[in-house]
Amino acid sequence: MSDLKFKIDAQSESAATTRVKARNFEIIVDEPEALGGTDVAPNPVEYVLASFAGCLNVMGHLVAQEMGFELKNLKMEIEGNLNPAKLFGKSDAERAGYKNITIKLIPETEADDTILEKWMHAVESRCPVSDNLQNITPVTVELENYYMAS
Amino acid sequence: MSDLKFKIDAQSESAATTRVKARNFEIIVDEPEALGGTDVAPNPVEYVLASFAGCLNVMGHLVAQEMGFELKNLKMEIEGNLNPAKLFGKSDAERAGYKNITIKLIPETEADDTILEKWMHAVESRCPVSDNLQNITPVTVELENYYMAS
Repeated sequence: MSDLKFKIDAQSESAATTRVKARNFEIIVDEPEALGGTDVAPNPVEYVLASFAGCLNVMGHLVAQEMGFELKNLKMEIEGNLNPAKLFGKSDAERAGYKNITIKLIPETEADDTILEKWMHAVESRCPVSDNLQNITPVTVELENYYMAS
Repeated sequence: MSDLKFKIDAQSESAATTRVKARNFEIIVDEPEALGGTDVAPNPVEYVLASFAGCLNVMGHLVAQEMGFELKNLKMEIEGNLNPAKLFGKSDAERAGYKNITIKLIPETEADDTILEKWMHAVESRCPVSDNLQNITPVTVELENYYMAS
């Protein structure tokens, strides 16, 4: 299969608010007031969990269909802890991001536990967001001159 | 500093559409029709890029303030390639997620290139989303019985 390319363009609206364009969609990202924002939208690390949920839902239905059982509904609870000390420049003792992410999958189905365990492992290993978080993803950052780019 | 906990609850609306609740906010995740969705919202891997942009914007302003220069505006272009073969169960030859993510930071500022290089490296290393993508993040997945949880 050919590679798929995904792309967003984004622009700061303020020090904590970002307006993102993904194809014909707009995504607003902000921070709660306690983290310096205006609290008009979810924050970056909440969007990470939301993207994980969206990916698990797609994979959950795809894998259920392959395995021949009906997934009537799927609820998900996802949470993570992070220590903001590195973010705020106070300490490098702990990593900047989530130290761990825990997911509860609550599928509505007649499939038995043995089938569901197999389903869960396939969903987790084939989900792109799961892969990008659980394994190292190379990131390249470059600077461009604003006045040349405009 | 104390750990911060972030949490979302999510529910499938269809095989490709997910409704996510993050505090008082709702996030809809879907897929383009070519990937089996109804194309009413960005897809999971686009939200990953959006969360990255939101995080870089927050960090960009915070680090600029610490370094004593004014960041008047920040544009960002972020893209990534992934091969969908593993997702669709066709091949395990390539990873499921983004093979790489490239970011262009376009800051509007009077700061010189030396300052901006230092700024860029601090932003990247202290951004939680950057950390979670570039380094291994432990993920735990568990199953819960739908009828017991309801």
